[in-house]
Amino acid sequence: MKDNKGIIAKKEENISDWYEQVCLKSNLVEFAVVKGTMVIKPKGYAIWEKIQDYFNEKINKPLGVENAYFPLFIPESFFKKEAEHAEGFSPEVAWLDKSLTKEGERLAIRPTSETIMYDSYSKWIRSYRDLPLKMNQWCNIVRWETNTTKLFLRSREFLWQEGHCVYETEKECEKDTLKVIESYKKLVEDLLAIPVLIGRKTEKEKFAGAKHTYSIEAFMPDGKALQCGTSHNLGQGFAKSFGISFLGRDEKKHLPWQNSWGISTRLIGGMVMTHSDDKGLVLPPKVAKNKVVIIPILFENTKEKVLKKSKEIFKTLKSFNPILDDSEEYSPGYKFSEYELQGIPIRIEIGPKDLEKNEVVIVRRDTKEKTISKVKNTKNTLTKILKKMQEDLFKRAKEEMYSKIVEAKNFKEFEKAVKDKKIIYLNWCNEKSCEEDIKEKTGASSRCIPLGSEKQKVDGNCPMCGKPAKVKIYFSKSY
Amino acid sequence: MKDNKGIIAKKEENISDWYEQVCLKSNLVEFAVVKGTMVIKPKGYAIWEKIQDYFNEKINKPLGVENAYFPLFIPESFFKKEAEHAEGFSPEVAWLDKSLTKEGERLAIRPTSETIMYDSYSKWIRSYRDLPLKMNQWCNIVRWETNTTKLFLRSREFLWQEGHCVYETEKECEKDTLKVIESYKKLVEDLLAIPVLIGRKTEKEKFAGAKHTYSIEAFMPDGKALQCGTSHNLGQGFAKSFGISFLGRDEKKHLPWQNSWGISTRLIGGMVMTHSDDKGLVLPPKVAKNKVVIIPILFENTKEKVLKKSKEIFKTLKSFNPILDDSEEYSPGYKFSEYELQGIPIRIEIGPKDLEKNEVVIVRRDTKEKTISKVKNTKNTLTKILKKMQEDLFKRAKEEMYSKIVEAKNFKEFEKAVKDKKIIYLNWCNEKSCEEDIKEKTGASSRCIPLGSEKQKVDGNCPMCGKPAKVKIYFSKSY
Repeated sequence: MKDNKGIIAKKEENISDWYEQVCLKSNLVEFAVVKGTMVIKPKGYAIWEKIQDYFNEKINKPLGVENAYFPLFIPESFFKKEAEHAEGFSPEVAWLDKSLTKEGERLAIRPTSETIMYDSYSKWIRSYRDLPLKMNQWCNIVRWETNTTKLFLRSREFLWQEGHCVYETEKECEKDTLKVIESYKKLVEDLLAIPVLIGRKTEKEKFAGAKHTYSIEAFMPDGKALQCGTSHNLGQGFAKSFGISFLGRDEKKHLPWQNSWGISTRLIGGMVMTHSDDKGLVLPPKVAKNKVVIIPILFENTKEKVLKKSKEIFKTLKSFNPILDDSEEYSPGYKFSEYELQGIPIRIEIGPKDLEKNEVVIVRRDTKEKTISKVKNTKNTLTKILKKMQEDLFKRAKEEMYSKIVEAKNFKEFEKAVKDKKIIYLNWCNEKSCEEDIKEKTGASSRCIPLGSEKQKVDGNCPMCGKPAKVKIYFSKSY
Repeated sequence: MKDNKGIIAKKEENISDWYEQVCLKSNLVEFAVVKGTMVIKPKGYAIWEKIQDYFNEKINKPLGVENAYFPLFIPESFFKKEAEHAEGFSPEVAWLDKSLTKEGERLAIRPTSETIMYDSYSKWIRSYRDLPLKMNQWCNIVRWETNTTKLFLRSREFLWQEGHCVYETEKECEKDTLKVIESYKKLVEDLLAIPVLIGRKTEKEKFAGAKHTYSIEAFMPDGKALQCGTSHNLGQGFAKSFGISFLGRDEKKHLPWQNSWGISTRLIGGMVMTHSDDKGLVLPPKVAKNKVVIIPILFENTKEKVLKKSKEIFKTLKSFNPILDDSEEYSPGYKFSEYELQGIPIRIEIGPKDLEKNEVVIVRRDTKEKTISKVKNTKNTLTKILKKMQEDLFKRAKEEMYSKIVEAKNFKEFEKAVKDKKIIYLNWCNEKSCEEDIKEKTGASSRCIPLGSEKQKVDGNCPMCGKPAKVKIYFSKSY
């Protein structure tokens, strides 16, 4: 505790420094010695475990997806089989030292596992009876980024899950592709309290090798989008490249349909940035390991009594995995700051005067709101406050996100909105050249074409290039 | 199903071919395209998930160990810090292509994580208040083996957990080192029904850089030992090399004590080899995902009735995750073989004659033992049989292991015992030169000095080299 000086940077003024300080000082993560890599500390990893448990439950039984594990190493030739895929990933691939495979070909460390998995799939799938085939793996991924490392958000190694399914029909494939992106939205909103927009990526922004990509997009306090999860309808391209085919019900050979989808430890970064403040980490109660810290207020004469009662209360709150900080080395005020920095959702103060009235003081980490509760009601009160806090965090973030969405009717409005760190909603031509032009001039990129809006009639011309508008879309800067 | 020809090799005649066929044909695992790597299929991975859940429960709360995640990449200089460690692992390290770190040093892919973790520990540990520090990670490991790949048992990439703890005192450290090896024994025996001998490794066989190593050793049907888990008391060597120190209660600087310990996906291989037979996989019920397969015996006249009843029974058995195979494409006999190959612990046969008597036939995979049960008692009967099967598998394997242990009083007896595929127990000199000599002459290596036996008085001379005997020990060939 002693060395911890609190957060020095301000979220409003320098979000980048502020974010790094919150991540480091709240003990979620730290930079590792190898450039671009990080150590996910127990507190951060516990959040990843919550995400794993939550998501496994959503996909294993309901969707029939089974977990498996495929190799870390991929032969170079596999990358080249799907041209767009190869082009998209080649710049970031980390290769093994050639001396390890003197007579063989170069080996890549997986930047994503389509190619290595689909090679197996091509051997496993023979008939329509083998379909659908639905697999997922939780693993580490390596992309040799050259941009500055950002804890959780951009690093050379990260953890993720990648689902890879194969279907008999296009319809089934598309249905699951959408189910998964909806399921990601639910996870991110329900567990991490991060509101997201859901939609389809443009041709430019879709996954390398996909037919189309759906994504959920969160918007950070600095107006930059954070892509939080993607679900790709791969069509039949990979099946063709990897020789996956099946004997259909008609006894003829067919190409199957495939999807792939993933979320990563980047979600933890999004959660930190969305909810935390200048005092430190704010954790949605559902992912906080220790939901409560009990701080007895100790004076010479009443110490014994207060400590005894605090220990009693501590025992009744086991289900919240509480911390009881009865050390006398630091003042209550110092402890308050420290546990605020650490993001413990609830602080319970127990002082002699409170106990005279048979009460405790309950303080919420996010709003600092105080609730006086009778000792015997503590558990019930906590349950209610934690539930409310989880809801409020989401509600507040959602309001903030929607307050940032503005429409742009011309380039000037668009440009101003980018400067004002807004999310821009517009009727758009859906052309790659226009998108590249916008990116170059403003730094903003397309986020997604909102789900459901594809079928809406769009009037008028693209305010950016003047061509007929075809879709509704969101643009913004992004991480 | 169609392509599956069953197991051709015999366990007694060619255990190596037999083992590979069982692993492959029961769909646990398969060879991946890159030499030395494997794909762990859902059925195999589900067993790994069971091991993870079981072990997390044993270490998280009871031992206070927290899960975390450290980087895959380790700088070359870290390896060199602990001389013995460097020497032990260097031959197997896979390096990244140098072009990735043009100006920096070579990067290794972790063959084990002592060095990268202890670099972090040296920054985290300041005072005795920071101790004990107990962390674990579940991750992939790469060791560039040149020996022949054996599914689960020897591969260039595998999955494991590695625990790494730091203590104030030698006593605490040793206590946990032993607790962990006991906990591994419990896991392997209780969950996988593999009996093991537990003991201390010799100087020659201990972990590179450790003070001493404890291991659990299983013995496969071919008499070869399979090291199933190790727990290393690292002493203060790594602390010294990595500059980990703490300010003690006496306000002076001290070196802490450390341990590290691991089990891997190799356990799955040990389980397959121990229990399976010439008909295919035998799975201990506790790790089988589908514990039961229901096979209705279908004849033209009674089909409808039998199917209806089978579906009813199927529903009452949900908690066993049953399979109902009501396909008409294959005969019951074909199905029996197939599910035996797949290692489903229990088969329920439901025929028209059984139903007339309100009965079903329950068949155990391991013994083929048949039990007639009233339909209404099926669930209770199954629970009992599954429990009994788990116990019997362990008991049988344990009896087999103990039946293999022989004492050797001279070199001739030792040599014969090795030829007879026995586990050899002897009074031994505990000298490296003698051990190397034995290895060269017989191919056998020391397995472990049984726990508790260290304090026993050992009489006479080493039957191998003639020097005074100092310890009791087990020798055998090994994987």
